[in-house]
Amino acid sequence: MKVYHKVSDLRAWRGSVGNLSIGLVPTMGALHAGHLSLVERSKAENQLTVCSIFVNPIQFNDAQDLKNYPRTPEEDLTLLKAAGCEVVFMPDEKEMYPAPVRMRLYFGALEEVMEGAHRPGHFNGVGIVVSKLFNIVEPTRAYFGQKDFQQYLIIKRLVEDLSYPIELVCCPIVRQADGLALSSRNMRLSPQGRKQAPALYQALQEAKQRILQGESPKQVCSHISDKLNSTGWFQVNYLTLADSQTLMEVSHPQPNSEYVLCIAASIEGVRLIDNLLFTFA
Amino acid sequence: MKVYHKVSDLRAWRGSVGNLSIGLVPTMGALHAGHLSLVERSKAENQLTVCSIFVNPIQFNDAQDLKNYPRTPEEDLTLLKAAGCEVVFMPDEKEMYPAPVRMRLYFGALEEVMEGAHRPGHFNGVGIVVSKLFNIVEPTRAYFGQKDFQQYLIIKRLVEDLSYPIELVCCPIVRQADGLALSSRNMRLSPQGRKQAPALYQALQEAKQRILQGESPKQVCSHISDKLNSTGWFQVNYLTLADSQTLMEVSHPQPNSEYVLCIAASIEGVRLIDNLLFTFA
Repeated sequence: MKVYHKVSDLRAWRGSVGNLSIGLVPTMGALHAGHLSLVERSKAENQLTVCSIFVNPIQFNDAQDLKNYPRTPEEDLTLLKAAGCEVVFMPDEKEMYPAPVRMRLYFGALEEVMEGAHRPGHFNGVGIVVSKLFNIVEPTRAYFGQKDFQQYLIIKRLVEDLSYPIELVCCPIVRQADGLALSSRNMRLSPQGRKQAPALYQALQEAKQRILQGESPKQVCSHISDKLNSTGWFQVNYLTLADSQTLMEVSHPQPNSEYVLCIAASIEGVRLIDNLLFTFA
Repeated sequence: MKVYHKVSDLRAWRGSVGNLSIGLVPTMGALHAGHLSLVERSKAENQLTVCSIFVNPIQFNDAQDLKNYPRTPEEDLTLLKAAGCEVVFMPDEKEMYPAPVRMRLYFGALEEVMEGAHRPGHFNGVGIVVSKLFNIVEPTRAYFGQKDFQQYLIIKRLVEDLSYPIELVCCPIVRQADGLALSSRNMRLSPQGRKQAPALYQALQEAKQRILQGESPKQVCSHISDKLNSTGWFQVNYLTLADSQTLMEVSHPQPNSEYVLCIAASIEGVRLIDNLLFTFA
């Protein structure tokens, strides 16, 4: 497994492999089985897989969150080697941002809701760093987790609107046995917090059942949010039923249409997100 | 010379030439010797040259200007063939914009002045179409004319901030014998208007001389603008001395620094621009 820290070294490698198909798995490190499922999928679909590890400062709107973001570079490399990843790109901040970025990307209504509404500037930062990675790695395909579903839709828009010659692949959420979606942030929970955290996935499932049974999505989401908040463990940012393409909130789901139920909540000061894609039958 | 109308055909060609160096000359057609100087430069520096011809609707803020923009596709192809251009990319609007673009690019203070201030949305449209062309053609180098100097700086920022692996080349303004900068829009002038038009270049030269002699840039520009307006032929949008990197207006030029004098004015309803780069000695 090759590990590159410099853009110029990665580009030299990229130039040397020519037309081979390349899968890119962009990560911020602190890898878990969710990331590894992306690597596995990329390996199945491409001749070579590049995993990038870069905690991107400009997508954090909260300095404390950036500081607390887990960093486990040695374990990451061990996991990637075992997974058969061919190339790791681990630039430092100076390498990715030799000068401050001055342009901004704006994704319209898609970034005005959910994570965009709660994390100002987040998707600009995501769009900038992913554009950079696309232009540095020049992959055939790029792999994103469904857990960050809004991020996936934002990147899809970036690829479509700027005509990047890259196929995007959205991979299913990997969960622990009790339903908790894997996240690098989970390791910041106490044992007690960790025991409570699966309530987020249970909330999504309960909301889905009740909406499928014809209850009003708004009332269901509001009722379940209140219930979570009243446990004393959670501060719910949002629990929303949305169109799975536009992320606009949906009050009256239609048959045979695809929706996404999204939740974001803090527990012990750690902000977790999860979602459920389903078709309203 | 190959002529492609489809993105997929251009990409198939691009895939077939692999690592050969490729120069891209993006144009809106109605080609003149200015464009051909870019093709010539690209041919000297690359193994293959692609010229794109696409009148980009989303960079026009004025529907009448878009409608009146000259279109001479047959003459363009004749000129490009004679110039030895290898590939022409001539997509139609549906091909470049199969769906409406929903994201926006914002270039900060650089787009708040001059053309950006007078043509709202113009540089977003330029940035989108150039990003698309970069991602479709994947050139080694891209050639832009100094006549659209602000556009060149905007594209430079795009390349730097998003890490495009492309070398930008800014080529000198090509002028007619009487000093008028070549522009596709010149052909919309009447013979009388055409006779007046070189006054723009004379204005730039006079302003430069007076600023070099120590006069206040603001007073010089304001005085010369008034003179042009008083002829009855011109409506000056701006005449400004600016820093050649940031385009911020400069009141007190410093020794050994590079500046750009920029002018935009309408004559017979045709909006022309010109500029002069120089070092304040």
